[in-house]
Amino acid sequence: MFFRFFPKTFNFFDLFEKQIGHAVEAAAFFKEVAALGYISEDAISKMVTIEHQGDDVAHTIIDRLNKTFITPFDREDIHALAKEIDDITDMINNIMNRLRVYNITVVDKNLVEFSVVIEQSVRAVARAVGGLRNIKNANAIFEACVEVNRLENVGDAMRDRMLSELFATAHDPLSVIKWKDIYQEAETVLDVCEDVAHVVDSIMVKQA
Amino acid sequence: MFFRFFPKTFNFFDLFEKQIGHAVEAAAFFKEVAALGYISEDAISKMVTIEHQGDDVAHTIIDRLNKTFITPFDREDIHALAKEIDDITDMINNIMNRLRVYNITVVDKNLVEFSVVIEQSVRAVARAVGGLRNIKNANAIFEACVEVNRLENVGDAMRDRMLSELFATAHDPLSVIKWKDIYQEAETVLDVCEDVAHVVDSIMVKQA
Amino acid sequence: MFFRFFPKTFNFFDLFEKQIGHAVEAAAFFKEVAALGYISEDAISKMVTIEHQGDDVAHTIIDRLNKTFITPFDREDIHALAKEIDDITDMINNIMNRLRVYNITVVDKNLVEFSVVIEQSVRAVARAVGGLRNIKNANAIFEACVEVNRLENVGDAMRDRMLSELFATAHDPLSVIKWKDIYQEAETVLDVCEDVAHVVDSIMVKQA
Repeated sequence: MFFRFFPKTFNFFDLFEKQIGHAVEAAAFFKEVAALGYISEDAISKMVTIEHQGDDVAHTIIDRLNKTFITPFDREDIHALAKEIDDITDMINNIMNRLRVYNITVVDKNLVEFSVVIEQSVRAVARAVGGLRNIKNANAIFEACVEVNRLENVGDAMRDRMLSELFATAHDPLSVIKWKDIYQEAETVLDVCEDVAHVVDSIMVKQA
Repeated sequence: MFFRFFPKTFNFFDLFEKQIGHAVEAAAFFKEVAALGYISEDAISKMVTIEHQGDDVAHTIIDRLNKTFITPFDREDIHALAKEIDDITDMINNIMNRLRVYNITVVDKNLVEFSVVIEQSVRAVARAVGGLRNIKNANAIFEACVEVNRLENVGDAMRDRMLSELFATAHDPLSVIKWKDIYQEAETVLDVCEDVAHVVDSIMVKQA
Repeated sequence: MFFRFFPKTFNFFDLFEKQIGHAVEAAAFFKEVAALGYISEDAISKMVTIEHQGDDVAHTIIDRLNKTFITPFDREDIHALAKEIDDITDMINNIMNRLRVYNITVVDKNLVEFSVVIEQSVRAVARAVGGLRNIKNANAIFEACVEVNRLENVGDAMRDRMLSELFATAHDPLSVIKWKDIYQEAETVLDVCEDVAHVVDSIMVKQA
């Protein structure tokens, strides 16, 4: 433990693990739904519930941060971490909501492909965030952050390929507008994962 | 007054009230124009004028912040507050500008509906910002922030319903592109109002 | 030199000049490609290389910032400056990538017009950033920042005019979607230049 004087009652580490746990749950559930190939009203409701649970933890972190004088790392890093992890769950929920708004109930193979990469990335983010508890994890954290960056590049290339195909083959402009939004939102989840990795990386460098 | 040693010459409270006053003026004027149902060149010009006035106050606040050593609350909160309030007026002006660019002169009933909720939200933000002057207003500020959050959720649901209808009923793809942008920009005003409420809330928690 | 005790080994000024140099290179190359009127695979590859070089400098700056105790100006300003300059090169590269994704190889006259203004703006940003080394440059820095703001307004008007024309004259909705994205991304480069100018301006005011 590298912050032995840090009071247990304000344990940010436990809260961040809980928060990223909800993000992992959202990503795993999204992969499961995409693999089934069909978006039901029940699935949409369940994702909203997961998102609300993550939201509650984010509010608890910000609230305790505002009331705590001594923090394990820079206040702005704690704030950024809570905010960005919240954005992961938010963005995954946004994809499901967008499918509902666009009345799309059948998932295409591209979204299945994205759901697999998103789950990999969120699990790597969880390893990085979970590692913050002990500076001995520095190597494991660093490797997890590299993996998140790698998957963000994978996601960029996927989105570009999917958009290229969409514009080259689609005949219905409204369908192009819908799927363009969905692929871009899927890629944004990976961007947000990379943002979290950057914050974790910056925390590690400052501790070193 | 809870900052009795704060010099009157750098009165951020007066400046923030002036700035949010321009945002309220923009929201009220937008509601008025939407209710008339017709966007004239004069209305567009008047909105640009309001936006410039708000901009001037934002610059004054940032300028004084940079030159002031002791501030009533955290420097980054003052900066965020000035920036986010500026974004409210900007975004309302953006809707009018977007209508002009898309050559839309007749407002639809959805935009009228949005204009009413936007004005309610900006007025609630004004109550929250105005309350910062005295910590005795804590309850009133808190209630105003809750109202802003509630209206943001209302706006999300409105935008989703409007986009669903738009894609389900529209025949002209260009018209879909235009109104999709406009509904999304209208909803963004409510997002920015919520951002201001978060900054106010965070200032209050730190003072408590 | 206004920070005589600042160790030469962590020379942020040299690094920022190097970083903005890559942004100028990206803007100049984009103007050259646009003037030729044809986007080749080689041109796209070369822009990616420039973007990576800029990225490397940004990482070096953030890394040194995290490891340096005393900095020539506020840590958050250094961080914001590195991040925003990186965004300039990123966004110029994004335009080229977007053209590739949309399978557009022939540049229109609007994009040529934008490329000229973008290069002017990035060169003005470079004057402002380069000036930070010596407080005697305050006037030159201020003039460069005013020029960047002026060009951002020019860009807004250009984008509005181009979008108006696009929607008024285009017959193919997919083509409208593509060019709308491209004009908006071109304008975003000028927004990011303005963001850099704001950071520089804020650094100057604090030194004054």
